[in-house]
Amino acid sequence: MKILKVGLLGFGQIGSALYTMLQSKNSYFKNELGVRFEITRIAVLNPKKKRTVKIPKHLLAKNAVEIIDDPAIDVIVELVGGTRDARSFVLKALRSGKHVVTANKALLAEHGDEIFHAAQRLNRWICFESSVGGGIPVMKSLREGLVANRIDSIYAIINGTSNYILSEMTEKGTDFREALAEAQKEGYAEADPTLDIEGVDAAHKLAILVRFAFGGKVKFKDIYCEGISRIRKEDIDFAEEFGYRVKLLAIAKASQDGIEARVQPTLLPEAHILANVTGAYNAVFLRGDEVGNVLLYGRGAGPKPTASAVLADLMDIAQRESVRSENSGMLMRGIRKSLRIKSISSILSRYYLRFHVVDKPGVLAHISRVLGKHRISISDVIQRERNLRSVVPLILLTHDAHEKDVRNAIREIDRQAIVRGKSQVIRIEEGAKTS
Amino acid sequence: MKILKVGLLGFGQIGSALYTMLQSKNSYFKNELGVRFEITRIAVLNPKKKRTVKIPKHLLAKNAVEIIDDPAIDVIVELVGGTRDARSFVLKALRSGKHVVTANKALLAEHGDEIFHAAQRLNRWICFESSVGGGIPVMKSLREGLVANRIDSIYAIINGTSNYILSEMTEKGTDFREALAEAQKEGYAEADPTLDIEGVDAAHKLAILVRFAFGGKVKFKDIYCEGISRIRKEDIDFAEEFGYRVKLLAIAKASQDGIEARVQPTLLPEAHILANVTGAYNAVFLRGDEVGNVLLYGRGAGPKPTASAVLADLMDIAQRESVRSENSGMLMRGIRKSLRIKSISSILSRYYLRFHVVDKPGVLAHISRVLGKHRISISDVIQRERNLRSVVPLILLTHDAHEKDVRNAIREIDRQAIVRGKSQVIRIEEGAKTS
Repeated sequence: MKILKVGLLGFGQIGSALYTMLQSKNSYFKNELGVRFEITRIAVLNPKKKRTVKIPKHLLAKNAVEIIDDPAIDVIVELVGGTRDARSFVLKALRSGKHVVTANKALLAEHGDEIFHAAQRLNRWICFESSVGGGIPVMKSLREGLVANRIDSIYAIINGTSNYILSEMTEKGTDFREALAEAQKEGYAEADPTLDIEGVDAAHKLAILVRFAFGGKVKFKDIYCEGISRIRKEDIDFAEEFGYRVKLLAIAKASQDGIEARVQPTLLPEAHILANVTGAYNAVFLRGDEVGNVLLYGRGAGPKPTASAVLADLMDIAQRESVRSENSGMLMRGIRKSLRIKSISSILSRYYLRFHVVDKPGVLAHISRVLGKHRISISDVIQRERNLRSVVPLILLTHDAHEKDVRNAIREIDRQAIVRGKSQVIRIEEGAKTS
Repeated sequence: MKILKVGLLGFGQIGSALYTMLQSKNSYFKNELGVRFEITRIAVLNPKKKRTVKIPKHLLAKNAVEIIDDPAIDVIVELVGGTRDARSFVLKALRSGKHVVTANKALLAEHGDEIFHAAQRLNRWICFESSVGGGIPVMKSLREGLVANRIDSIYAIINGTSNYILSEMTEKGTDFREALAEAQKEGYAEADPTLDIEGVDAAHKLAILVRFAFGGKVKFKDIYCEGISRIRKEDIDFAEEFGYRVKLLAIAKASQDGIEARVQPTLLPEAHILANVTGAYNAVFLRGDEVGNVLLYGRGAGPKPTASAVLADLMDIAQRESVRSENSGMLMRGIRKSLRIKSISSILSRYYLRFHVVDKPGVLAHISRVLGKHRISISDVIQRERNLRSVVPLILLTHDAHEKDVRNAIREIDRQAIVRGKSQVIRIEEGAKTS
């Protein structure tokens, strides 16, 4: 019987779910898998706070460092969040010989180099399944199940809040503000939703995916990041007319001259399996050179799914504590070389462009002339509601164009008197074919 | 550096893909993961046969047992197929101290008890990721990524041939025979497609899933199995009118009084993520008590995806050869107790019923009276093309009913003079909610 002694830092919703799970399932883990988990100490800000989950008083400590230094503890589970204290706790835990499990994507995206280096140098496990895609076994699949593969591309829906909002807008025809309010009411969005709706949370997760899928260090600031707050109901409707759905995608593609890595609202064909991932669900769609397309789908957040992934990490550590090669081997993939992330301005893509124009003769000709000047050619047009002198939407889909050219063209077009307000630019991805 | 010496039994498409992969990627495995794989011997029926993949002559042997007995070999990869020789080779390999990797679902479905018992008793790994869902990390997710979960239900598309045929019928409006011919032309169906289209292949895989998801021995013959050969174009069209798609599903659900386990054509709501799995793709949709719904999707067959899974198994063995608890623990889940599979006649389900009836007054009333007598109530009806005396389709959807009652009712209805031909019965599943 293997016994793993666990120190918990933080006891919010995820910590409570983990504690409850271990209380109710420990005999299953013991009898069926030969491992007993003991939560030995729990660091909390306020030991006197009333809690819904009953825990023996002697487990609680106010001082995280005391727990990190406790020689009886094998693994530290970091659930404090943020990047300042968490960084110092994680590094300290590794240095004092502990393995570490963390759900903290911001921490790993911003301080991954330092943390993974320390884990590798000290030969400790650092596990972070719950940091990307909640309870979905994403890291395990990348690291082990698909180990035979060179990963060529990733298209991921990894922010449940944004996907919920876009699904509401698509299914119920609400506009962004309304859908956001609904998401907040349902508990899918924070009171301050900025990190979610501006794409930062998805970019954190993408940084982790890129590091281990493509094998190398990633500078977080190199990842282009655009959220969904500028998506309007009309964009979703027009996209639908062309057979597309709007999704916030985290995209990474390997190529000869570097890696594309970006988070952005995207038009995706409605028949694509990712376009059918609705509500607060997450999904990672990747392409391996041997296996072809693989999709991993599930709840990307929530206390129980997250605790499910933390427990999987703890089980990995319990059962393979003695195994060195995999841990260091896999971590080394993420630290040995530096990945070159291509600038967004060099990306080639099809585009959805939406202008609000004064409806008078020659407007389309004028705008397409400006686009042409910037080497952008048009594949599809929607122009309707012809009421002379009123402001109407004009929608153009382009053939492949360079981001840089598109930006220059839009800047020029937005200066014209016939154009009202800021124009909309959304990239179109066909995704890898699925049938 | 860990070196793993591999003996291959069989050198068809999967063996060739595995050999080629190891040739081209061995330096990657060595440098990044610290493991070197050596294919030491290959057993083939005819060593003199011309092969597309070049292999040194000295690797080839006609006698599989010679390879199994070779003390220099660590792992036997069984790719001979069938259940007779394969069973004897696998048992012999375990007894001679080898770990075993196999893609053979028929073998594990029919002789799983004996083989898993032997592996457990001899403390050898037996890995079979490639036996279910090709390259998709299904077994790894069940065994490790979702280890915290009690699995409550599984809905799986695990026969690519059937899914390809149903997708063709749905998208192109072809009938079954035509779509089967197309699948054969495209290499998605064998010359003798029986095992695929009659659901046997899916039932083999379901037996493996049930064993390890629900933790216990499974009698293969207890799994109800029905294929797609009786699905007609009109069934797909009528299903669509009600908002459903027809899929061949392998279904397993846990309940107080036993486990439902069955393979059958199923009407699934078109918005369900599984209904959007098209072409030759596979997908396993499962529900865990902590994680909620998870979908794992990818290529369920083909030499490269299968070899990708075999390699993942080999890597697991290389990196955890010294780890005993997990292997035996997981295997014990599959052999310790016997699972009670419920008889199909006790299943409660909604049904799609299609009758070809002579169009005259009172037919619907008559049929619904017979159904009512058998405690079956109707929720939806399609009745059209009213040409007195001609034969027209009559479609009924039912509320929840017992399989036994439905069978009795259909038997009675099919005896009536107003009914022509054999009636169609397809179960309806709403699937677990995904948003």
